[in-house]
Amino acid sequence: MKTAFIGLGAMGYPMAGHLSQRFETLVWNRTAEKARQHAAEFKSQVLEDFSGLKDVDVIFTCLPTTSEVIQVLNQVLFFLKPGSLWVDCTSGDPVKSLDVAQTLAEHQVTYLDAPVSGGTAGAINGALSVMIGGPAESIEQVREVLSTFAGKVVHVGKVGSGHAVKAINNMLLAINLLSAGEGLVALAKMGVDLEAALEVINVSSGRSNATQNLIPQRVLTREFPATFALGLLAKDAGIALDVSRSAGAPTPLFAITESLYRAARDTIGASEDHTAVVKMLEHWAGVTLSSAPSAVFDRSSP
Amino acid sequence: MKTAFIGLGAMGYPMAGHLSQRFETLVWNRTAEKARQHAAEFKSQVLEDFSGLKDVDVIFTCLPTTSEVIQVLNQVLFFLKPGSLWVDCTSGDPVKSLDVAQTLAEHQVTYLDAPVSGGTAGAINGALSVMIGGPAESIEQVREVLSTFAGKVVHVGKVGSGHAVKAINNMLLAINLLSAGEGLVALAKMGVDLEAALEVINVSSGRSNATQNLIPQRVLTREFPATFALGLLAKDAGIALDVSRSAGAPTPLFAITESLYRAARDTIGASEDHTAVVKMLEHWAGVTLSSAPSAVFDRSSP
Amino acid sequence: MKTAFIGLGAMGYPMAGHLSQRFETLVWNRTAEKARQHAAEFKSQVLEDFSGLKDVDVIFTCLPTTSEVIQVLNQVLFFLKPGSLWVDCTSGDPVKSLDVAQTLAEHQVTYLDAPVSGGTAGAINGALSVMIGGPAESIEQVREVLSTFAGKVVHVGKVGSGHAVKAINNMLLAINLLSAGEGLVALAKMGVDLEAALEVINVSSGRSNATQNLIPQRVLTREFPATFALGLLAKDAGIALDVSRSAGAPTPLFAITESLYRAARDTIGASEDHTAVVKMLEHWAGVTLSSAPSAVFDRSSP
Amino acid sequence: MKTAFIGLGAMGYPMAGHLSQRFETLVWNRTAEKARQHAAEFKSQVLEDFSGLKDVDVIFTCLPTTSEVIQVLNQVLFFLKPGSLWVDCTSGDPVKSLDVAQTLAEHQVTYLDAPVSGGTAGAINGALSVMIGGPAESIEQVREVLSTFAGKVVHVGKVGSGHAVKAINNMLLAINLLSAGEGLVALAKMGVDLEAALEVINVSSGRSNATQNLIPQRVLTREFPATFALGLLAKDAGIALDVSRSAGAPTPLFAITESLYRAARDTIGASEDHTAVVKMLEHWAGVTLSSAPSAVFDRSSP
Repeated sequence: MKTAFIGLGAMGYPMAGHLSQRFETLVWNRTAEKARQHAAEFKSQVLEDFSGLKDVDVIFTCLPTTSEVIQVLNQVLFFLKPGSLWVDCTSGDPVKSLDVAQTLAEHQVTYLDAPVSGGTAGAINGALSVMIGGPAESIEQVREVLSTFAGKVVHVGKVGSGHAVKAINNMLLAINLLSAGEGLVALAKMGVDLEAALEVINVSSGRSNATQNLIPQRVLTREFPATFALGLLAKDAGIALDVSRSAGAPTPLFAITESLYRAARDTIGASEDHTAVVKMLEHWAGVTLSSAPSAVFDRSSP
Repeated sequence: MKTAFIGLGAMGYPMAGHLSQRFETLVWNRTAEKARQHAAEFKSQVLEDFSGLKDVDVIFTCLPTTSEVIQVLNQVLFFLKPGSLWVDCTSGDPVKSLDVAQTLAEHQVTYLDAPVSGGTAGAINGALSVMIGGPAESIEQVREVLSTFAGKVVHVGKVGSGHAVKAINNMLLAINLLSAGEGLVALAKMGVDLEAALEVINVSSGRSNATQNLIPQRVLTREFPATFALGLLAKDAGIALDVSRSAGAPTPLFAITESLYRAARDTIGASEDHTAVVKMLEHWAGVTLSSAPSAVFDRSSP
Repeated sequence: MKTAFIGLGAMGYPMAGHLSQRFETLVWNRTAEKARQHAAEFKSQVLEDFSGLKDVDVIFTCLPTTSEVIQVLNQVLFFLKPGSLWVDCTSGDPVKSLDVAQTLAEHQVTYLDAPVSGGTAGAINGALSVMIGGPAESIEQVREVLSTFAGKVVHVGKVGSGHAVKAINNMLLAINLLSAGEGLVALAKMGVDLEAALEVINVSSGRSNATQNLIPQRVLTREFPATFALGLLAKDAGIALDVSRSAGAPTPLFAITESLYRAARDTIGASEDHTAVVKMLEHWAGVTLSSAPSAVFDRSSP
Repeated sequence: MKTAFIGLGAMGYPMAGHLSQRFETLVWNRTAEKARQHAAEFKSQVLEDFSGLKDVDVIFTCLPTTSEVIQVLNQVLFFLKPGSLWVDCTSGDPVKSLDVAQTLAEHQVTYLDAPVSGGTAGAINGALSVMIGGPAESIEQVREVLSTFAGKVVHVGKVGSGHAVKAINNMLLAINLLSAGEGLVALAKMGVDLEAALEVINVSSGRSNATQNLIPQRVLTREFPATFALGLLAKDAGIALDVSRSAGAPTPLFAITESLYRAARDTIGASEDHTAVVKMLEHWAGVTLSSAPSAVFDRSSP
């Protein structure tokens, strides 16, 4: 089985690396230097010309948004091998992806939406989770190639479902993070010890990935390491709102959250880490979330 | 050290049971039969008359709301021992509790707000977490009695801070649950397999106690076991909104969530399990969240 | 100048009637009987075949949504006269209308978006207001034909701007109505005399078309006459949210309102009058808004 | 009939002026100089000592919030004449006012809540509207004194209802203003001519006092004259939310608006004019609302 991997970003680079250990893999990137570096580091080969796709069985895309996927599609469409599979690991838009799937189907290519979770650490360790949408028999055909970088592959529904689940997951992240920020800002203004508050919340019913990991590691430390950009989370929140609207589900928390993330993105900065959304709340309330001892409350007990 | 425990509900009954194993404990309940049953089952004694509090060193209250605490306070105030401590395990209102603390201080009694988390299971196993507010030296005095039913005691700040942290925790629970419901309703309408979707969300960034435990165990099973009432969570959401408003923190997600939980409480039922809030979303969207195979999507893959 | 009018609904029928008094006018409707009736009542002629459009200078469309406009466009495109103008009075989608405009431009036809306000009464009296987008010189060419049914024609911007202003206006209607409903439900539960409350609000800073006209005439009377459907207002709210999102304006009130109108539409009924949105609030609060004397408050003063 | 007027601010000063033309009137102000100035300008007399209230039949208060009313109450309570009436024109809190009414009732004084609308112009012209709550017979007793500064007196319900209606009115103002701002920011970003847009909205269904008066006069001119402070409107929004919560009415738009006005107050400035709330929306979207010709859209048509 011959594969190709298009998009060697922070996620795609190590994913294509794992893939190339077990399968013949052509790699392509918008800045070609990255592809050459990949070929030098792994067993991959640079895809010099899109005509090289003509005997490829499985093409992967891992790009910032579905817009870039469509740009690539328009360039490569007439070189694709009939009967091949296109596995799109982009955190994409399920509505637009249906158009992509239809265009590919007219060329006898099956499109599968297969976004991943697990972050750059999961990509490097080959331990990603894949949520995949499409026909069951096509998914069976790609389980082995996916297993090169994924610890878990879950078939969530027909085509578009993978993107939908990924968008909903990221909206839940957005909401859990923003609401944790609201709560901690209020507690900080009361002089409550934030580390102590998180210690109990994290063994209580209100716990989430945001309270357990993001807030203590990225916010209270004031590090805000930009591994997942605020602009991308705002984009995903928009996709999730589109999903719920086109599905016919009234979703007030999704709606308000989407507006607030756009406000944060446009005032705090799209390229800041997504956790920097709390800076908007801090600005409103005139307080900074930190683990430093508070002036108001002296926690002298052990 | 002599103790008393007022309020033998689903939480208080086993908590007082643990306490009475190690300390002399008087018990009181609004329906006296419950107190007699407790005395028969554990080593506790029925507090027949509030004058019996005159030599008690630590009084516990564990009641539905701060209103009931104030009612009890008015009945017992003149019997309290100067120098004693009042440990209030109610999920109470921090603003009203400051009044309680002041009234008690005028009678040389120190008030500590000490709500718990861990549910009835934690109460029965003596493994609760306590978030406690008040002076550090007073908290040291009660650590030993608290340890009879608590695995973790965290000092979060001055008096009122315990109630504030508990309210914020429960608001986060309310938001995480409602937003997970919004997402799953949208996915259900798209025909996505909900168990598969949760399987990936629960190893991804959007995970929370709601997606990991509440939705799969209580909602998708359609069991909605009424262990924590929707009416009480709506009450706690109101306290959390009051906390953020009095602290001067603008909190849009808290605000909208508080209104929606009241709407759910008054249309679904205050005594239903808190997870039944999703029934309002289901009603809006005309769909039921369940793990039964969907008519729309046939998940034939393993 | 020869004209055509496509879409003889509650608005279009009288608009085309006014037009045909001053200009030669062909009329078309999905159900042809309506067109024959129009020709019998006014000086219009039935457009039997779309080829009849070949010498028409100004074509009007007045249809439920932009989707119907696109359907008509696909049927008539090759019969249009180069140099003619297409005036779309639909409350349409500005983003989709840009595509329509571009398609028409390729056939040397200029598209103007020209939604109207004033309701059926304004249409019958020829006193509508038109908010129109497009090139200034094209708008000058249609001012005379528009004046047959419009008292006011306002050029609001480039193509798409007319639809955008109409959508924003309807979102403001949606918000003013919903918020007035929230306030009156609260006052009703307090036993306040609603007519008295509106009497003062309507000379105070909180007044709007909703408090001055819609609530007293349609809600308190319990008549809810279905002149403008809840489903159409929910659709317009969606367009307004799309406008603000594509313009890059964070709009939290628009966002939450759009979700709530969809919930109301899907639980109260899409074909109910738009003012029936208050029934959702009444259901939540367990109260009915009416001008009948309240059981709680007896207003005996003059 | 002898009267007293407490609180000679922008509203109270002219109101007490009208009152003193027809009734013997004692005036008091926190800064006494203002009272002396009033006595010199009108026929009023300075209330030098609160014991002077002992033969006063009707006392007016017109203060910033109910907190100041309570402070005055505590100072004057033992000087009040049994059988007298207290007319509170403050935009106050209906819940706290019930306590005031009860305290006064114990001293045989009847409390009426009677907030006004009409602004400083209405106060100067004696053309205010009064929304009044309390027993009908007591209201009849004060109609004549109220008529000295009011064009309209509307009895809206039992005690507290006047404050409730005023708070709801101001919340509707807050929402109508904020939502108009959201819409205009979106239109501005599209390059739409804002004056043209308002011209049509103001003859259409979305019109309100905000679109007809506040936005054109205060925002598009960039004048923001501080006649009604943003901090006071945020306070009133809080009262309205408390009213709806204590009445048991779920009000999502009220809730989110209350949070957003606090955010605006704390970032834009409490003493700015209330219309400056749009500056928060402008900051989010990176645009300024003004009637100046837009760079994007050249409106050359008449």
